[in-house]
Amino acid sequence: MSQAVHAEAQTPGQARAVFRAGARAPTNGWCAGYTQANLISVPADCAYDVLLFCQRNPKPCPVLDVTGPGSWTTVLAPDADLRTDVPRYRVWWNGELADEPTDVVDVRRDDLVTFVIGCSFTFEGALADAGVPMRHIDQGRNVAMYRTDKPCRPAGRMHGPLVVSMRQIPAGLVETATRVSSLMPAVHGAPVHVGDPAALGIKDLSQPDFGDPVDGDAGDVPVFWACGVTPQAALMASRPPFAITHAPGYMLITDVWDETCRVG
Amino acid sequence: MSQAVHAEAQTPGQARAVFRAGARAPTNGWCAGYTQANLISVPADCAYDVLLFCQRNPKPCPVLDVTGPGSWTTVLAPDADLRTDVPRYRVWWNGELADEPTDVVDVRRDDLVTFVIGCSFTFEGALADAGVPMRHIDQGRNVAMYRTDKPCRPAGRMHGPLVVSMRQIPAGLVETATRVSSLMPAVHGAPVHVGDPAALGIKDLSQPDFGDPVDGDAGDVPVFWACGVTPQAALMASRPPFAITHAPGYMLITDVWDETCRVG
Repeated sequence: MSQAVHAEAQTPGQARAVFRAGARAPTNGWCAGYTQANLISVPADCAYDVLLFCQRNPKPCPVLDVTGPGSWTTVLAPDADLRTDVPRYRVWWNGELADEPTDVVDVRRDDLVTFVIGCSFTFEGALADAGVPMRHIDQGRNVAMYRTDKPCRPAGRMHGPLVVSMRQIPAGLVETATRVSSLMPAVHGAPVHVGDPAALGIKDLSQPDFGDPVDGDAGDVPVFWACGVTPQAALMASRPPFAITHAPGYMLITDVWDETCRVG
Repeated sequence: MSQAVHAEAQTPGQARAVFRAGARAPTNGWCAGYTQANLISVPADCAYDVLLFCQRNPKPCPVLDVTGPGSWTTVLAPDADLRTDVPRYRVWWNGELADEPTDVVDVRRDDLVTFVIGCSFTFEGALADAGVPMRHIDQGRNVAMYRTDKPCRPAGRMHGPLVVSMRQIPAGLVETATRVSSLMPAVHGAPVHVGDPAALGIKDLSQPDFGDPVDGDAGDVPVFWACGVTPQAALMASRPPFAITHAPGYMLITDVWDETCRVG
């Protein structure tokens, strides 16, 4: 279904309307050129810790916008309703995943603050433009994401491991992928590691913690970028009383051009 | 005095010891290659608004570190005491400047959160390396800073105008200055405006709101960068009950290399 719907949803507003109507699909490849984003909503009394956690861990948690308490709108997509326009949400109670609904309109809280966090899908467009193949897209899969053994710098009650996304990159294009992504610090920037999963405490690339396993071609090198799912891993470790996030790979599509995330 | 002291203070630690002993000097030109920073300390119950204000205005307010409540240390300079190691502080009551001491050890509050914010002095080194003359340094002056008529995006109780620093740049080097600074988004990044002070609501370049007037040579163009004094202007507009900042131009010298602020 997602492919057929996808072909018709040309603008971010149209794509969000498809998801608002209940469609469930990973947003990978949707609305090329527009910035997609991670979401995390927490009670206002947790917001400082989350914001400080993001400031202290800017590579995995580049904050693009923060709503006021109880607000479900963002300057990044003024017409969007953040309770309905993501294709799949996750609802967390005390750090435990409780539900994966397609909207969160029945959440009757007026104290939630929502963080909109940059996503590696933005630099994937730049990588593709530079001739770097995206194996997971070619294979019709979600990107592979892994919990590492590297702790983030904690902030108040928020702590947890760095989560990374992995892309299999032809060895001759690793330099290009590094250079191109480094110019996009608002969406994770340069890789955090190239080549050795064990250096990040990842035992088996075929067993990602989030997303799908992705096969490499001969001569590919696994390249790891800090990932916007890191705040979800921090929720699981820190166990705040309540939170809402997007489901990994099911992102908010904003009205902002990817190009605005590039420096230099 | 500052020149003689300066010549002997080769490392950031040595420079901070000079200031800890009471020396008052603008830090412009000290410890070339090391990152200097703006400071702002506020009561913990104001910290979320300040952090969100910085997130919403990242060009003037790039946050490099945030201390825990009551802490006067930073990961950017582990041996530094943030109460003594800046050459000149400003103490604010209800948004009014009350004092400019050389230390704030007599402030008996244990609830202050200190924000360390990037400073344009960092990219000045990169500009100089690229052959761009720094008129204010050649003239032995502090950089010229101006309050603009552009409001920052507010956050809770924090609001105020964008403050910019201005450098007179030879017209043929404006492209170089733009390109080089754009690669340093953690220290204000690319200019916010080139050429026309009136476009920012600046009536008279010879009357800066902070720092010293700086003369341009024939053929120079005024180039404006977002400035880390912006949070001080927000204090003056927003009038929180209490705050401490550095005095403009009298910065914290950290142990971090400027080069780490560069992307790409």
